Amino acid sequence: MSKTSAEMARRLDSELLQLPTGSRLVQVAGSRPDLRVWMREIRQHDTPATFGMQPNPPVYVYETAAAFMDRDNVPDPSAGLPAVRAGWIDERGDTERLPGLSSEYARRRAEGEPGEARFPGRRAPRRARAGACVTQLHYARRGEITPEMEYVAIRENARLDEMREAYESAGLLRRHPGQPFGARLPEIVTPEFVRDEIAAGRAILPANINHPESEPMIIGRNFRVKVNANIGNSAVRSSITDEVEKLVWSLKFGGDTVMDLSTGKDIHETREWIVRNSPVPIGTVPIYQALEKVDGTPEDLTWELFRDTLIEQAEQGVDYFTIHAGVRLAHVPLTAGRITGIVSRGGSIMAKWCLAHHRESFLYERFDEICEIMAAYDVSFSLGDGLRPGSIADANDAAQFAELETLGELTKKAWKHDCQVMIEGPGHVPMQMIRENMDKELADCHEAPFYTLGPLVTDIAPGYDHITSGIGAAQIGWYGTAMLCYVTPKEHLGLPDKHDVREGLVTYRIAAHAADLAKGHPGAQVRDNALSKARFEFRWEDQFNLGLDPARAREYHDQTMPKDAHKVAHFCSMCGPKFCSMKITQDVRDYARERGLDPAAAIDSGMEEKAEEFRRAGGKVYQPE
Amino acid sequence: MSKTSAEMARRLDSELLQLPTGSRLVQVAGSRPDLRVWMREIRQHDTPATFGMQPNPPVYVYETAAAFMDRDNVPDPSAGLPAVRAGWIDERGDTERLPGLSSEYARRRAEGEPGEARFPGRRAPRRARAGACVTQLHYARRGEITPEMEYVAIRENARLDEMREAYESAGLLRRHPGQPFGARLPEIVTPEFVRDEIAAGRAILPANINHPESEPMIIGRNFRVKVNANIGNSAVRSSITDEVEKLVWSLKFGGDTVMDLSTGKDIHETREWIVRNSPVPIGTVPIYQALEKVDGTPEDLTWELFRDTLIEQAEQGVDYFTIHAGVRLAHVPLTAGRITGIVSRGGSIMAKWCLAHHRESFLYERFDEICEIMAAYDVSFSLGDGLRPGSIADANDAAQFAELETLGELTKKAWKHDCQVMIEGPGHVPMQMIRENMDKELADCHEAPFYTLGPLVTDIAPGYDHITSGIGAAQIGWYGTAMLCYVTPKEHLGLPDKHDVREGLVTYRIAAHAADLAKGHPGAQVRDNALSKARFEFRWEDQFNLGLDPARAREYHDQTMPKDAHKVAHFCSMCGPKFCSMKITQDVRDYARERGLDPAAAIDSGMEEKAEEFRRAGGKVYQPE
Repeated sequence: MSKTSAEMARRLDSELLQLPTGSRLVQVAGSRPDLRVWMREIRQHDTPATFGMQPNPPVYVYETAAAFMDRDNVPDPSAGLPAVRAGWIDERGDTERLPGLSSEYARRRAEGEPGEARFPGRRAPRRARAGACVTQLHYARRGEITPEMEYVAIRENARLDEMREAYESAGLLRRHPGQPFGARLPEIVTPEFVRDEIAAGRAILPANINHPESEPMIIGRNFRVKVNANIGNSAVRSSITDEVEKLVWSLKFGGDTVMDLSTGKDIHETREWIVRNSPVPIGTVPIYQALEKVDGTPEDLTWELFRDTLIEQAEQGVDYFTIHAGVRLAHVPLTAGRITGIVSRGGSIMAKWCLAHHRESFLYERFDEICEIMAAYDVSFSLGDGLRPGSIADANDAAQFAELETLGELTKKAWKHDCQVMIEGPGHVPMQMIRENMDKELADCHEAPFYTLGPLVTDIAPGYDHITSGIGAAQIGWYGTAMLCYVTPKEHLGLPDKHDVREGLVTYRIAAHAADLAKGHPGAQVRDNALSKARFEFRWEDQFNLGLDPARAREYHDQTMPKDAHKVAHFCSMCGPKFCSMKITQDVRDYARERGLDPAAAIDSGMEEKAEEFRRAGGKVYQPE
Repeated sequence: MSKTSAEMARRLDSELLQLPTGSRLVQVAGSRPDLRVWMREIRQHDTPATFGMQPNPPVYVYETAAAFMDRDNVPDPSAGLPAVRAGWIDERGDTERLPGLSSEYARRRAEGEPGEARFPGRRAPRRARAGACVTQLHYARRGEITPEMEYVAIRENARLDEMREAYESAGLLRRHPGQPFGARLPEIVTPEFVRDEIAAGRAILPANINHPESEPMIIGRNFRVKVNANIGNSAVRSSITDEVEKLVWSLKFGGDTVMDLSTGKDIHETREWIVRNSPVPIGTVPIYQALEKVDGTPEDLTWELFRDTLIEQAEQGVDYFTIHAGVRLAHVPLTAGRITGIVSRGGSIMAKWCLAHHRESFLYERFDEICEIMAAYDVSFSLGDGLRPGSIADANDAAQFAELETLGELTKKAWKHDCQVMIEGPGHVPMQMIRENMDKELADCHEAPFYTLGPLVTDIAPGYDHITSGIGAAQIGWYGTAMLCYVTPKEHLGLPDKHDVREGLVTYRIAAHAADLAKGHPGAQVRDNALSKARFEFRWEDQFNLGLDPARAREYHDQTMPKDAHKVAHFCSMCGPKFCSMKITQDVRDYARERGLDPAAAIDSGMEEKAEEFRRAGGKVYQPE
């Protein structure tokens, strides 16, 4: 192990990253031996005798951090993850292993002195054979179900079908009707459904052929709402170890994809470490690196340089690129009257380029060529919203919506090349104006999946923008956004560290899950029901373990009641040992149940004569410890 | 100073509690010399020359922590706050100073050994003279405008009218149309409007005649959305100093009212310290203390004991009581099939009492007598939702809505006594079911103000329930809820400490403000605009100071860029010094402005010839520091 990778391994050997108590990792098998989906099984204790003694079935969640959870076998990041998709890519026979790197820049980096920064043992890249198209959209349109699609179906279902009976008998299947705003959520996701959603352009499965380590996932409004975490260094702060650590924290706290937004030193090398160690799709904004290559001067950007950067990153295995091709010359002056102008880095780079050259954006003009490159590696488009509002005042304005219409036009173009597309969205938007964003995106962009940053519903809380934006994210997720880009507490103030990654991700997992519940996702409420049942039955450990962040829940509980005995206590610190509302409710329930009374009958009949009996029993039911 | 009060003073001498940098306290005068409303003036720096040199007007927020912000004059909590309302109450001539305490329990406590716990120098209580009614609702119905109502009008306006011109010329008055769901928000709140809203029962002004220290505020959906903070000890953890400290943290972080939910030792004395030091209305749940008096056995509660508790607390100055009179015997069995039964403490106490005695709730049966007591001191009703759902599964069920209908019936009854009423609401509700709660409350409870706990939009995030509930709170506030009861990160896990108070309150101030924006509150967007303009112009200090928690924003900024010089830097740690999107936008704006081009013209005409010029200038506009 090199010094870098030893330091990484040391950092990843963290208690917080290990498998939580009460959980175990399982692999759910698909139709072929090499198709196995990692899930975390959250086991539950039995309902205690006072509450009616009942087994409680485990709850399953998919787990992308599995590889990093085994402390007896701390992974060596310099080895990278196993290439789970390699066989599938290979057997399709439509790609070829290249003799070397196609990007001039990448070759230069490879030829330089190998330092600590360089990932050891990079493999040769693949590309589509001449005349072949290798995108999941292409396969779907041809009617094929790839192993990737089957994997996605298994992952989305989280064993709901197998567990249905057990959930039913534990009372966990109750659910409210959703309000899906046009989303159509099947009871069980089939591989055919996955294929059809991809074929229709309503969902994407980002899976670069050079990222065989990635575990397939899907982004579309008829599936679970997904969450992205942004990481990456900057000129002010930069360390590959920090970024790999942030990647693993992102996995641990539920990031479905990760964007590497590095702008500092060793961008190329940092990305290689990240991609090789990532089981989730990696996104980037290639223009950031391109800008570094011209020393931060947007006017000096050229199509040739940008093209080389796309190829460089595509051959590393980046799964989706943010491309700000919707920032057209004509849109730029529309931002002049804004309070906060252009706040997207990519947007402002392109705006400056357009003005400086008085030319249409080369991203717009060369869009077909970009599509050809992306199709050759199956890099998905994330069409960037370079003119997104950076303040409440600028929400839903002419600049923003002009760009959105252009993105719709580009979507059609990309689809012609069988490229997968999602659309990026704002930003800062007050609550009453969020819905319009979603509706307009669906209409203008032909139902391509929407991928939004927040939106932040107010500007007045720097330091808490995970919350200002979590509020907006939950709403726009409900309305139909397919993936939510997290915002951390450091937004507007500084670069997030790993602790910010945790806060941001848990906040966004909440938003995504709240959206799933509101849409009426068939499986979503099982976990709420299980956790609430555990809470009601004073199964403290189960309550912690079923939560999004068991370590945090346990830590907070221990601050008031640290003793282990309290974790089995039939009370909590809020009411103390003598009185507990949950306990009283159980008395009510026992009473109603024992007498077989329906609610109306309970009042009309017989209760009077039982009152004395209840009084006697009730007085003794609860014994403080 | 006693030992207790010296320790309190020491704790309150905290840097975090002092007046933030850039702010000063001002008093806005009303129509009479003894009517002056504390506001905090957040001063701003001028726009720097690169952005066009312009003065930026101060922004005003009302400030209830004023008394605790002067470190040269650290308050002595054992002296209590000045009685700002004493003269107003006195001059109405409808109250009398009682010779002693009317509550038997209070007298017993007063006669015991005075220990450290007892607040020194308690004043004799007031009560309405025989035949008189002293509620703000009574005055409003008679057409009177009390000084309290005028105070509220000044407070709600936050100097918007006086500042209008200055805001206009700084471009801060921009605002989006709201979606108010039937709320009617006047451009300027007049004392007449305040009176009319109170008279109609659509708003309450909680102001016990025994709490002359309170600064009037209003709760109603045609005013700014308010936030309540819960504090209070328990059997597990108990200290008066802790509670006074939490009170002051609540003020500092924007609590509009505070509920003392103590259930531990020295409840009576703790409350006295809190009320005497509180400039905001204090709410309680009297049944909690009544239960302590019968040693935690709900069956042993009696009307006489409860009545004495009401009087005890009313004479201390509690401004609103949560009364769970809607938990009727007939409703109790409706909860038997729930996942989490009855989770409200008050609700479960009354449920147990009803079942044990097989009798209708004494709170329901004695409701007229309760009204008489509350009217005699102007204690407002907060009609408790004892059957609120404790899990997503139990949301909007028959038990919850049956109780809500009863609360509507009780509202009418209370109004007959000229009592002020608000209605408590849930709880745990998924997003798609929140709106129904609001609509049903308005319909069933005749537009009495709604006061909700959250709601939490998912159950799966113990440790983060300030966020799960902040999402729901923002939405229900938008739909028309008048006051949001905060939830802290410790919810379900333990008692909140002062740090949790901070997290909970900032989260809820975000939710309330987001709701104001979404409803279209006339003054709300000024602060967003000011902060975003400051952000755009790299006025870092102004950005921090205009935020809800300047200390936190500064701390986070300093973690990445600690040097003071960076607070005037024209860049931030996210992009680094060489490139900055905000800066580029300014170039765009200058370009458009200098040439007097409207957006369309900018493209059609003359730009080509200017491109070279821009290129030359643009290359130099931005100089890294």
